[in-house]
Amino acid sequence: MNLADMSKSELQDFYQEMRTAYEALQAKQLSLDLTRGKPSAEQLDFSNELGHLPGDTFIAADGTDCRNYGGLFGITDIRKVYAELLGVEIDEIIAGDSSSLNMMFDLISFAYLWGTQDSSRPWKDEPTIKWLCPVPGYDRHFTITEHFGFEMIPVPMTADGPDVAECARLVAEDPAIKGMWCVPIFGNPTGITFTREVCEALASMNAAAADFRIIWDNAYAVHTLTDTFPEVVNVLELAAQAGNPNRFWVMTSTSKITFAGSGVAFFASSKDNLNWYSNHASVRGIGPNKINQLAHAQFFGDAAGLKAHMAKHAASLAPKFAAVLRILDERLTAAGVASWTKPEGGYFISLDVLDGTASRVVELAKEAGIALTAAGSSFPLHKDPNNRNIRLAPSLPPVEEVKVAMDGVATCVLLAAAEQLLNQ
Amino acid sequence: MNLADMSKSELQDFYQEMRTAYEALQAKQLSLDLTRGKPSAEQLDFSNELGHLPGDTFIAADGTDCRNYGGLFGITDIRKVYAELLGVEIDEIIAGDSSSLNMMFDLISFAYLWGTQDSSRPWKDEPTIKWLCPVPGYDRHFTITEHFGFEMIPVPMTADGPDVAECARLVAEDPAIKGMWCVPIFGNPTGITFTREVCEALASMNAAAADFRIIWDNAYAVHTLTDTFPEVVNVLELAAQAGNPNRFWVMTSTSKITFAGSGVAFFASSKDNLNWYSNHASVRGIGPNKINQLAHAQFFGDAAGLKAHMAKHAASLAPKFAAVLRILDERLTAAGVASWTKPEGGYFISLDVLDGTASRVVELAKEAGIALTAAGSSFPLHKDPNNRNIRLAPSLPPVEEVKVAMDGVATCVLLAAAEQLLNQ
Repeated sequence: MNLADMSKSELQDFYQEMRTAYEALQAKQLSLDLTRGKPSAEQLDFSNELGHLPGDTFIAADGTDCRNYGGLFGITDIRKVYAELLGVEIDEIIAGDSSSLNMMFDLISFAYLWGTQDSSRPWKDEPTIKWLCPVPGYDRHFTITEHFGFEMIPVPMTADGPDVAECARLVAEDPAIKGMWCVPIFGNPTGITFTREVCEALASMNAAAADFRIIWDNAYAVHTLTDTFPEVVNVLELAAQAGNPNRFWVMTSTSKITFAGSGVAFFASSKDNLNWYSNHASVRGIGPNKINQLAHAQFFGDAAGLKAHMAKHAASLAPKFAAVLRILDERLTAAGVASWTKPEGGYFISLDVLDGTASRVVELAKEAGIALTAAGSSFPLHKDPNNRNIRLAPSLPPVEEVKVAMDGVATCVLLAAAEQLLNQ
Repeated sequence: MNLADMSKSELQDFYQEMRTAYEALQAKQLSLDLTRGKPSAEQLDFSNELGHLPGDTFIAADGTDCRNYGGLFGITDIRKVYAELLGVEIDEIIAGDSSSLNMMFDLISFAYLWGTQDSSRPWKDEPTIKWLCPVPGYDRHFTITEHFGFEMIPVPMTADGPDVAECARLVAEDPAIKGMWCVPIFGNPTGITFTREVCEALASMNAAAADFRIIWDNAYAVHTLTDTFPEVVNVLELAAQAGNPNRFWVMTSTSKITFAGSGVAFFASSKDNLNWYSNHASVRGIGPNKINQLAHAQFFGDAAGLKAHMAKHAASLAPKFAAVLRILDERLTAAGVASWTKPEGGYFISLDVLDGTASRVVELAKEAGIALTAAGSSFPLHKDPNNRNIRLAPSLPPVEEVKVAMDGVATCVLLAAAEQLLNQ
């Protein structure tokens, strides 16, 4: 029965029922963790062959000795795999060290310190820098722009991607808006994939700032939970056609494909943007870890090999996502106090609970031994204006633990809702 | 015979003799490269076992699964090897990705953007930032401080290290001096190792800037060419004793120990400095490549294993350095137009030719197919005030090529000197 339709006394009974259920939950003394989008040990095992690679072969296809210094853009062996996956040219993509987050930070840092090639001055010399942040979004993105002191403007997500009409309106009128965060495929935390129309709109909208950039974090480009892969829209091409060739900084990595902390990160963009990046990155250092790149190229073989590898991840993750969705449905649908996304890929489910109760749900869960990502984490400055969003990350624990944890979370959601409704 | 003692006609004859030798050199159509301090293929082979590591073992000594995310400071398995080598505590050292240069750039960048914990404001908000640069020094160091727009103040090197009286005088009186570059052991390009007294003076000198930092790039800490290792002075301890606990940012890496582009870099400093670094580095990303760190820990075993490994490098490099020094002595001593360092470790020999002729020597060598590091490279802004310094890097080519190249360089030095003396 929908909690909104209950009489006060029915609600009181329901509260007591949930209170009892919660005390039983606490009595289990659980220690479960749904906080971060980490691969499970089972998933990591899929890539254990990497521990033996590159073996005795250290020479890249172009003759480069990967053991020595040099090669700021990385080796073509691995760049060509990702050029194919992203649908870009090989001279539009750089392979780096392990972390695309590192590269995103550096891109912003370089633009802040020295300006982009399209900037009239370094961003640090602008009176204000503003940044569009589709919400809910990725906490580590927002932490970077917070750290640089940018004013973050939340933009609502729709089922098709960010509200592009709102984005276009904001960007057209305000030259202080220098950038935007996007996770275009199986986004963090919604699991939403931007439609081609949304991609086209973002590529072609008029920006008041000539140096407006979209950080296109395609972290989950091939992270399907089904047997089909999403279309990877080539935004570099769309932007060039629209006369905005330098708009996109496209990022991706193998972090949730091979080993999470020691994969290969990629930066794809216009040649102008890559040249600008290398002007600064070449001062920062000599080049990325080519041995790790060669090992990954050997491991995948080609883009088809990488996709075949992703099928193993899908087989491991899909039952966990199915369990979460089934429990949410069984426990919460009737009560009418929550809604959630049903992603077909990625690492997260975005759960909206009764307005005003997200932080209470996380607190209750914590006191029952279930760690959830802090409420508000998916919003700039951790401020969820409705205090309703919770990011669920079911990848790390075994499926049986996911079930126990989610059943507990559902109890917390219902208990917090009943508390709130009784206090109104 | 010393060229300075020659009559005009003797000098003319000598010039003709060198011209003839130079033309013979050109006729050989060489293609040799003494530009960069790269390990040779033979040296890289010493570490080929790394291609098979970490094998099937992914768990660090403390139970960390190195395949997953996490651990901004790196794993203790490799940190303890370098803590022992540097004589610091394990909680005073961070293991990072492959490049210590990357970390040096980031340290300066973080201080520039946000200030150090001892700064009254971010360095970007200072009217001027100045930086002490012992010369000759490492070109990539100077390029970083140039890129940030710092005013670089050359300080002369002596046989014991930088002129500390001059450093102390400058640093005491000018609060705009925020830092200093140092390569304390087998320095680039001189091969000079700072004496303990110099280390003590640098640790204890009074600095007008409370946030004065010395980047202590101990890149060649164990890179001996003999069977003895230099003392690694613990400057963190010296600085703490002198009341300047946050003065040193100590850097090192395995770049010239295992594979040049894919080793492990380290940052050792006070706990306060490491905390300050992590405040920013934790925004930049999640953590370094722990798989590579584990592979290196397995490969070395311990500090003694690492030193045993360095003996192989010494055996490979010593004959090349000996060949360079013998040819320089045989070809140049009598002429009295050059002097050079005789390092017992590191990757470079610093050659001073007749004042005003270094760029001509490099040009002549180039036209004879011998690539030398550009004249002036070892000075801030590439400006060698005497146009006399040339950095020789004999590590990369096989010893027979080193001999041919150096004999050619000697001819160029003598020809350039004769040209200059005849034109006076």
